[in-house]
Amino acid sequence: MSLESNQIVLSMRPGNGSIEDCFSLESKSLPALQEGEIRVANQYISLDPYIRLRLNDAKSYMAPQPLNSVIESAAVGEIEASRHADFNTGDKVVGLGNWQSKYQGKPNGFRKVSTQHIPLTTYLGPLGMTGVTAWIGVKKIIKPLSGEQIIITAASGAVGSVAGQICKQLGAKVIGVAGGPEKCDYVTEVLGFDTCLDYKSSDFEASLDDALKGKGIDGVFENVGGKQLDLFMERMNPHARVALCGLISGGYNATPLPIANANTFLTSRITMKGFIVSDYLEDWPIALSDIASMISQEVITWRESIIEGLENCPRAFTEMLSGKNIGKNLVKITSI
Amino acid sequence: MSLESNQIVLSMRPGNGSIEDCFSLESKSLPALQEGEIRVANQYISLDPYIRLRLNDAKSYMAPQPLNSVIESAAVGEIEASRHADFNTGDKVVGLGNWQSKYQGKPNGFRKVSTQHIPLTTYLGPLGMTGVTAWIGVKKIIKPLSGEQIIITAASGAVGSVAGQICKQLGAKVIGVAGGPEKCDYVTEVLGFDTCLDYKSSDFEASLDDALKGKGIDGVFENVGGKQLDLFMERMNPHARVALCGLISGGYNATPLPIANANTFLTSRITMKGFIVSDYLEDWPIALSDIASMISQEVITWRESIIEGLENCPRAFTEMLSGKNIGKNLVKITSI
Repeated sequence: MSLESNQIVLSMRPGNGSIEDCFSLESKSLPALQEGEIRVANQYISLDPYIRLRLNDAKSYMAPQPLNSVIESAAVGEIEASRHADFNTGDKVVGLGNWQSKYQGKPNGFRKVSTQHIPLTTYLGPLGMTGVTAWIGVKKIIKPLSGEQIIITAASGAVGSVAGQICKQLGAKVIGVAGGPEKCDYVTEVLGFDTCLDYKSSDFEASLDDALKGKGIDGVFENVGGKQLDLFMERMNPHARVALCGLISGGYNATPLPIANANTFLTSRITMKGFIVSDYLEDWPIALSDIASMISQEVITWRESIIEGLENCPRAFTEMLSGKNIGKNLVKITSI
Repeated sequence: MSLESNQIVLSMRPGNGSIEDCFSLESKSLPALQEGEIRVANQYISLDPYIRLRLNDAKSYMAPQPLNSVIESAAVGEIEASRHADFNTGDKVVGLGNWQSKYQGKPNGFRKVSTQHIPLTTYLGPLGMTGVTAWIGVKKIIKPLSGEQIIITAASGAVGSVAGQICKQLGAKVIGVAGGPEKCDYVTEVLGFDTCLDYKSSDFEASLDDALKGKGIDGVFENVGGKQLDLFMERMNPHARVALCGLISGGYNATPLPIANANTFLTSRITMKGFIVSDYLEDWPIALSDIASMISQEVITWRESIIEGLENCPRAFTEMLSGKNIGKNLVKITSI
C-alpha cells in the first residue's frame, strides 16, 4: 500500500470570483523515501496574507505560486520517517511543509524545535515568521523612541499584535487599529496597547485625532493601506517611519491601491519601507532570541484561531483575508 | 537721504489664478545699521521650487511664507556696510538675502565666500543648497552601487544635473528624464548621462523600457512625481531607493498628488524617503568639500539661466516652475 499525502493545490488564478474557488483538494502518492529526505506528518498549517499575493501571476518578491501544485506555506509537524542524519522519527519540526497532510523531500529550511516549554504552534506565531516580521518592522525600520506615538494596523492580527507589544516594551505610546469592538477590546485589555481605534466606526478619523492628542504620528506598522494609511500620512511628525508589511485593504487584487498624497513624503520627510522577513535572514537569530526572552518574561501574549481539517484551508484562508478572526490563523490537520 | 531696499513681497496666497499675480514690488526704507548687523547689496537671487510650497498656507517642513513680507530666499552679494566683527565691506557673502536689492540685519546663516577661482553664483548652485541637495539624495539615500541603474528626473535642472553627475562618478548607469529634445541633448552631451528620456514624447513609456534593457531600476532621484514616478515604481528592482526631493508635477498646489500603486512598495521592497537639505546640516561640510573637489577635477559641469532685474523675480520664478529653462535659475539684481 502506497502512502498518500492529501494536498490543497491552486487550480486557477483568482479573478472576479471567490478566492475559495481557486483551490482543489487532491491526493498524491508518495514514492519511497530517498537518501537525504524526511517525511513530516504536518500538524498545523500557517495561513499568511503573503500567500494571497503569490496566487496572482504578477511580478512580486516571490515567483507566483505554480498552478496545479501544492500551496507553499509554513507548517509544523513531526518527523514520521527520516533518511537524513540530522532528523529522527518523532522530532518536531517547522518548515515549508505546505498545505498538505505530509511533506516529503529534502529538509531545506526545516529546523527542529522544542515543545518542552512552548506549544508547537508558537513556531508559526511569535517564534516563527510572524513574530520575526513584527520584530524586523519595529526594531529595524520604525525604531520607536520612548514616548513616540506609533500606529499599528491590523492590531489584533498575528503580526500586529506582536509588533505593538514590542513597541510598548520600547516605551512608545501604541495606538492600535482594528475592525469592531471585540477586536479593539482585545487589543487594549489583553495586549495592553494604549488605545485601539475601530476603523469600521463612522467617526474613525475623529477618534484618530482624539487619540493623537495633537501630537502627530512618529511611526506606522502598516498591514492594511488604503484610506487608513492616507489619514496617517496627513498626520505625520517630521521624520516619521512607515514599515510597510502588508496592504490587505486592497485584497492583493490586480487593482492598484493608491497613496493619496505624495506631498506628505516631502512635507514630513517620511521614510516608507516595504519589507519582507526573508530579506533579513541575518537578523533571525537575534530576533528569535529577543522574542523568546519576552515570551518567558510574559510581556508578550498572543491568541490563535484554529480551524480543523486540511480540506478547510481555502475557507480558513479566505476568512483570514477578510479579517474575521483574532490572532494567528492556523489549520489543524486532523486526519493524518 | 534714507537708504531703500526694493523688495518682492507675497501679496496674496496662490489660488486658481497665476502664481505671478501673488507678488508685489515694494520699496522699504532701511533704518540706521545697528551693532552686530550687516548690509548686503544682493547681486544674484536663487530661485528654488521649495519656495512654491511655502506660498501655501499649509503644514509643511517650513512655516508658510508670511503675507506682505519679503520672499525668503538664498542670495549672494557683497557687504556694503558692516557693524559685525566677522564681516567687512567688500566681502562676498551667501545667505538668506531674500528677494530684495539689499539685505540688512544680523548675519545669521551668512558665510563669506571666495570668488578667486569660482564665480559667485556657484554658491547658489553646485557649491550651495542646490549642490548639497543633490549630494545628500545620492550619497545618503540612493547610495548607488557601480552598475546600478539610476533615474534622475528634472535631469537638466539645477539639482538633477548635479545628482546625475555624482551618480556617474559612482559608476552607476544614469538615465535622465527631461522635457523636450533640447534639454535631453544637454543632459547626454554636456552632462554625460548615459541616456535621457523626453517625458513629453508620446512613447515615453516605451523609451523607458528601452533604456532599462530589461534590468529594472535601482534608484530614483525624484524631483517630479506623478505619472513618471508611477511608471518607475512598476519597474523597480528589489530594494530600490527613491530620494524624494520634489514633486513639481503637482505644481505644489493644494490638490494631492497620488502614488498610483502602493503594492509596489511591498513587491519590490522599495524605500522612499522625502528629504530636505536643512535636515542634514552635519553633512554640509563634507558635501561641499566633495563637490568642490569634483568641480576642480572638472567632472561636474552646470549651466545657469539668468534673468535680469529684481522686478522680474515673479516671472522668472513662474518660468522655473514650468520647467522653461535649463540649469540653475537666477535673477541678477541690476539696479542696486
